[in-house]
Amino acid sequence: RRQEVMRLASHEDGTAGAIMTSRYAAVAETLTVGEALHQLAAASDAETIYLVFAVDAAHRLVGTADLRSLIAADRRAPVAGLLDRSPTSARVDDGDEEAARRLVEARALALPVLDGDGTLVGIITFDDAQRCLEAEAREDADRFSAIQSTPQESAYLDVSFAGEMRRRAPWILGLAVAGLMAGYIVHIYEDALDALVILALYMPMVADTGGNVGTQSASLVLRAIATGGVGLRDAGRVLWKETRVGLGLAAILFLFAVLKVWFISNGSDVPTALTLEGIGVAIGVAIAVTVVVSVLIGAMLPLIALVIRVDPAVFAGPALTTIVDVVGLFLYFQITTRMLGIALVE
Amino acid sequence: RRQEVMRLASHEDGTAGAIMTSRYAAVAETLTVGEALHQLAAASDAETIYLVFAVDAAHRLVGTADLRSLIAADRRAPVAGLLDRSPTSARVDDGDEEAARRLVEARALALPVLDGDGTLVGIITFDDAQRCLEAEAREDADRFSAIQSTPQESAYLDVSFAGEMRRRAPWILGLAVAGLMAGYIVHIYEDALDALVILALYMPMVADTGGNVGTQSASLVLRAIATGGVGLRDAGRVLWKETRVGLGLAAILFLFAVLKVWFISNGSDVPTALTLEGIGVAIGVAIAVTVVVSVLIGAMLPLIALVIRVDPAVFAGPALTTIVDVVGLFLYFQITTRMLGIALVE
Repeated sequence: RRQEVMRLASHEDGTAGAIMTSRYAAVAETLTVGEALHQLAAASDAETIYLVFAVDAAHRLVGTADLRSLIAADRRAPVAGLLDRSPTSARVDDGDEEAARRLVEARALALPVLDGDGTLVGIITFDDAQRCLEAEAREDADRFSAIQSTPQESAYLDVSFAGEMRRRAPWILGLAVAGLMAGYIVHIYEDALDALVILALYMPMVADTGGNVGTQSASLVLRAIATGGVGLRDAGRVLWKETRVGLGLAAILFLFAVLKVWFISNGSDVPTALTLEGIGVAIGVAIAVTVVVSVLIGAMLPLIALVIRVDPAVFAGPALTTIVDVVGLFLYFQITTRMLGIALVE
Repeated sequence: RRQEVMRLASHEDGTAGAIMTSRYAAVAETLTVGEALHQLAAASDAETIYLVFAVDAAHRLVGTADLRSLIAADRRAPVAGLLDRSPTSARVDDGDEEAARRLVEARALALPVLDGDGTLVGIITFDDAQRCLEAEAREDADRFSAIQSTPQESAYLDVSFAGEMRRRAPWILGLAVAGLMAGYIVHIYEDALDALVILALYMPMVADTGGNVGTQSASLVLRAIATGGVGLRDAGRVLWKETRVGLGLAAILFLFAVLKVWFISNGSDVPTALTLEGIGVAIGVAIAVTVVVSVLIGAMLPLIALVIRVDPAVFAGPALTTIVDVVGLFLYFQITTRMLGIALVE
């Protein structure tokens, strides 16, 4: 046990080596099935014997076999004849998440972990892989919700007050600082709000909608990246797809905004120089443009995160909402004031 | 194969029966280890033989044993002596997610599924359980991001334009309607914004911060519920914990807002009847109250969802942001206008 701990401690956190176990049973490739079964039956210390690892004299992995095939085989047959000679495996310095995902995708019971020269140094069991992926999923979800994730998860009710402040306060404070920017935009256009009070009524809807469509795009692209369905090579296809979706959503929201302004508005809010029809169209155009831009920002942030190698979940979660908020408010005021010709006194 | 399909088709979607397989190998409890191994070796159709299911003459489950223990045992010993007689199991009409979680938590290879009278009718394998939990996690994440999730997931690039509109547009439109409420609040307090332009500068920050702290609380409580760490019985402890966290975050944001207003403000924005100090304190109090209220709303929504049996992820995701937005803006204007005595002309 102590030897195992020392061995594993020598592998860096976040690598396959750090989540593997050295409690595995390997058999020599030269054995017969009967001899191998005999050895496996005695390997009470091994975490699993259901995947059999066959090694050569230098302890290099030759192949793997399901225990089932050994049980079904003739006892006198050589193990070598039953081996899958190109089994799914990981290198000790591969990422732990990558190795775990490989194991889960292969729906295998264990994954052999090899040294640079192909020596079998450990195995990752399916439950360790599962635990690793669960922890990763939790950390991603946390970052998406602006929570400072800790590698070790404590039960919710066990986290101390200080612990809660540490995982929640930094993001909240950072985002509050960023939120001042959105306020600055509103501040700049206060005279426009003054001149046309109806703009205030639709302002939060435009900002919220931008955040919502951006979050949808970011979530979908993020998951496509995480599950390996999309990489940087697909950036063009992703952006083209999202542009079309953005235009579709923009059309729906344009109609919604125009109809709302035209038919369910208080006419007394309209200055004499303007018409309700014109205001409706301006607000509709503003929300449509905001939607398309927000969808594209949502789709691009995870891709940018890939390029500059930061965690896509942070970049696509809390950062997105803040960016889209500022951009959305700016577009809203720019478009409505230009289309309606409201003079700005700055 | 056809028989299996017919059998499984008779179980309702979302139940353990619907995700189980009838391709399992059961052995009679009266067999010896040698006889059982012989039968298992021949059960090439079974999805797994690594967990051995022992049944009585009426096909009721008597117990399970790891294949390992059979291999290590004397071939002439009775299987009955190796059995775990109270194995983790599921009923056919249990929820599929619940059954899958039970299997994953037991870190077992398979879960026996029983009829009302204890008859073994199928097994859930660990990879089917994993697939079921992955689908559930994906659906939860979708709802949290206001995406209409489909039970069958297509690869992101394969979803058609119409499919994208179906899964994104309904929520976006619904939330846009709800977003009009927040606009209405701003509209009501437009005269206050007019009288004290500095209020506009901090308005988005207050609304955003409310959304952020609410999302944090909701995410953490949601996960605590999902992993079984928190139930309705803990509602009091959850709310007490979140109240303290909310007060802590409120204190930090109060300080941030007050210092920002006092030291980094443009003095020209202050009407002669008021002082920058007073305005800073009013904005600080408003953000502090909003934070505490938003944290509590975030913590309560998942609990309320439990009571009224709707999906907590919807209730805690998109609904939360909208509710917190409206409440936050209302509190912000109520508190600042009352503390600063700005007359409202409605």
